[in-house]
Amino acid sequence: MNDSYAKLLERIIQIGRLQAVDALLEWDQDTYMPPKGIDARAEMCAQMAVMKHDLQAADAMGDLIASTAESGDPVRDTNIREARRNHARASRVPVDLVENISRVSSLARSAWATARKDDNFAAFAPHLTELLKLKRSQAEAIGFEGEAYDALMDEFEPGAVTADIVPLFRDLREQLVPLVSAIGEVSDRIDDSVLRRHYPANVQEQLCKRLGAAICFDFDAGRLDRTVHPFCMSMGPRDVRVTTRYDERFFSTAIFGMMHEVGHGLYEQGLDPAHQFTPMGTATSLGMHESQSRLWENMVGRSKPFWQFQYAGVQEMFPDALGNVPLETFWKAINKVSPSLIRVEADEVTYNLHIIMRFELERALISGALSVEDLPSAWAAKSKEFLGVTPPDDASGCLQDIHWSLGGFGYFPTYTLGNLYAAQLFEKANTDLDNLEAQFARGEIQPLREWLREHIHQHGMRFRAGELCERVTGKALSPAPFMRYLNGKYKPLYDLD
Amino acid sequence: MNDSYAKLLERIIQIGRLQAVDALLEWDQDTYMPPKGIDARAEMCAQMAVMKHDLQAADAMGDLIASTAESGDPVRDTNIREARRNHARASRVPVDLVENISRVSSLARSAWATARKDDNFAAFAPHLTELLKLKRSQAEAIGFEGEAYDALMDEFEPGAVTADIVPLFRDLREQLVPLVSAIGEVSDRIDDSVLRRHYPANVQEQLCKRLGAAICFDFDAGRLDRTVHPFCMSMGPRDVRVTTRYDERFFSTAIFGMMHEVGHGLYEQGLDPAHQFTPMGTATSLGMHESQSRLWENMVGRSKPFWQFQYAGVQEMFPDALGNVPLETFWKAINKVSPSLIRVEADEVTYNLHIIMRFELERALISGALSVEDLPSAWAAKSKEFLGVTPPDDASGCLQDIHWSLGGFGYFPTYTLGNLYAAQLFEKANTDLDNLEAQFARGEIQPLREWLREHIHQHGMRFRAGELCERVTGKALSPAPFMRYLNGKYKPLYDLD
Repeated sequence: MNDSYAKLLERIIQIGRLQAVDALLEWDQDTYMPPKGIDARAEMCAQMAVMKHDLQAADAMGDLIASTAESGDPVRDTNIREARRNHARASRVPVDLVENISRVSSLARSAWATARKDDNFAAFAPHLTELLKLKRSQAEAIGFEGEAYDALMDEFEPGAVTADIVPLFRDLREQLVPLVSAIGEVSDRIDDSVLRRHYPANVQEQLCKRLGAAICFDFDAGRLDRTVHPFCMSMGPRDVRVTTRYDERFFSTAIFGMMHEVGHGLYEQGLDPAHQFTPMGTATSLGMHESQSRLWENMVGRSKPFWQFQYAGVQEMFPDALGNVPLETFWKAINKVSPSLIRVEADEVTYNLHIIMRFELERALISGALSVEDLPSAWAAKSKEFLGVTPPDDASGCLQDIHWSLGGFGYFPTYTLGNLYAAQLFEKANTDLDNLEAQFARGEIQPLREWLREHIHQHGMRFRAGELCERVTGKALSPAPFMRYLNGKYKPLYDLD
Repeated sequence: MNDSYAKLLERIIQIGRLQAVDALLEWDQDTYMPPKGIDARAEMCAQMAVMKHDLQAADAMGDLIASTAESGDPVRDTNIREARRNHARASRVPVDLVENISRVSSLARSAWATARKDDNFAAFAPHLTELLKLKRSQAEAIGFEGEAYDALMDEFEPGAVTADIVPLFRDLREQLVPLVSAIGEVSDRIDDSVLRRHYPANVQEQLCKRLGAAICFDFDAGRLDRTVHPFCMSMGPRDVRVTTRYDERFFSTAIFGMMHEVGHGLYEQGLDPAHQFTPMGTATSLGMHESQSRLWENMVGRSKPFWQFQYAGVQEMFPDALGNVPLETFWKAINKVSPSLIRVEADEVTYNLHIIMRFELERALISGALSVEDLPSAWAAKSKEFLGVTPPDDASGCLQDIHWSLGGFGYFPTYTLGNLYAAQLFEKANTDLDNLEAQFARGEIQPLREWLREHIHQHGMRFRAGELCERVTGKALSPAPFMRYLNGKYKPLYDLD
């Protein structure tokens, strides 16, 4: 029995190492790979994906799982459970369907890029139609209890089901809308023009490294590089790479991009190295991952106490732009709210409305209730209803995000789950640690980082995200802490009520 | 029949892609990997090595090779031949021996680093003894016609045998010794102190990129980075990475390190992309590879005409150090000869003496004619005999090179083979292209690069190095062109005769 677990574990680790290799291939592709290397790189990545799939789907893997019993040991049982889940997901989907999805989404990705550039939804529509068909087949092959969408979302957020998310998001939306419109009426009370002065990229980069270290990112176990789109990629807790991008005419892009990615990075660095390459050494879901990035980006990075400690140093680095700008002006500027068309530019108040509308639209696309043909008008209507703005074209409407072109249906909800988890966890940390704000104002970040490591990071995939949240905070996930956070911050900021 | 070749080719390409993945893992380890990432990286590399070995040694591979006939098509036949060779080498060696060598050499590598630092040969000796035993077993398992050493050297220089190399090296040595001692008597005729002024690293880096491009390295299909030890690593002809190191107090380190590695890189970039990941798209041997690096480093990079075109620009970049230094002084300085203890610091006249003595010593170690215990005194004696210098300690004697600690017996001769190939090829190119020196003086490098691509690079592994040399130059490899090159350059340089 022990022997079969040892063999199973060996295979699990092999798969984990392949994933780490693949992560490096992708990191390198976006950072240092010379441009002509792309074709060979695509081949190398595809081979890693096939090898990983083959290992996961192998009959020998199924046999090992079947012959290895749970023992009550949480490490062992977590690893067995996840191996079973991965084997099931991999082996139920026919190989030709896997290959088809890979091929079609590869074409769809470039068709999407062109369609967005040309504002030509019609050119992307056939690709989307075909992808939806294939993803429905994939969902059928995997199986589900509620709706097909669940089988797809489960890839990103294990255990999450639409039946739970629908009421959660409805609740959230009902509470968000009044706040957004109240702020909308007085949005000119905050002026963020000081952020649009000249900020030299090399100085921004120095600041990113300084602030990354200040929020406890270990640069001996990680790096910060430049890419077109910021991301975090991990080869294990001791090799975590984050990236950001620099806009010399806007302060927030690089700094908050970095803090977001470092938030992801702290989760990865907080995983237990003893369980490296196994589920017990892997983050539990994308939603929980996003909670870490948003917590550091917004609850820490956009808080006043954090800047009370850091701002003088920032002024010294940018004397021309910020030398004469008071902390209060700076802090308000980095928290300006304005409903916009584009998700990735959205502030933390309106952001989740972008997500909820995408969640509703993609569910309808998967179920067939919404046809691809009707997507642009449905998008425009939702945008007007949720955000009060109507996109002038599809490029800034239903073509703005890459996710669907990659076949990533079910990914969007993890963003809002992340925001809600972040607020609920942060509220609890604030209680446990007794006045986090005062700590931030003294530059003390370590206690929060340790709290997150102890309560979230070190558990890997032992608990599903929802279960983990409930264990740590004593309550199921709800929008209440997030709304308390937003109201507590933005009502004073905008002099509301 | 065709079908079995298609299947075989697919497997060959899979192995090639794994090699490229492994190359990236190694490149990253030496360039950008955070220091704490090393343990995970070692595991990832080891797994890639095992997967590659398993694919090569698989019975299914043997069956495919056996059922695929040569057809007279050079591409197909080359790929089949090399697959057979790799399968034989991989499958003949028992897995536990492979693992043993890997484990023991991993330990030996760190024991060597410590022993060199502490100048403590006794601490390294047991590791070397065990490695020699294992490598002898490996040679026996692989099989050989002449001596065991041949089976090991064959890994690096396919087809090369001691019986051919011994007389070649003897010939070379007999001709080198008088030149080295003639120069030794007048070595103070060249003063290289101008190279030891201050050369800012960032300006050196700019110069490296400029000169790399000038000798036709394609930076859209490659990169230049900084590492402790310069190297070239390839993920295929469109993704070739070279590195160099910067010494602000010595001009030659970075520039000639770069030209050496770019020479390797041009070979890799010159391979046919249509045959990527297969033997037809792979360099034929380490000796031929070294010929390309030495040709660009020395025959181009240390030639006077090359600097006639480039030197004014270099003076502009380093006005303080070189502004008042005449070309002639600079050119003589970069060609100063002085017998030294350390191979990697040796000039091109004495370099091969370092190699020949290592070749003799490692052959004797493998055959058992020399015991590990007697190595330090044998080294000192050879050093005195070949170079006229006796190392004051083992750290600058038999502990100076890493190769043996990695189990790399049979690697050293490829360096000298490379120098000889370089001279023989360069002499032929000079005839074919009609006065290369005049071209260099006009900044025209492309014709030489095209000549090398046509005659050497594009053939991949179609011909063994010796055969390729003979096809291109009409003659078997001999020391004559190399000695003509040295005598033609250094006798005037040192006013000899």
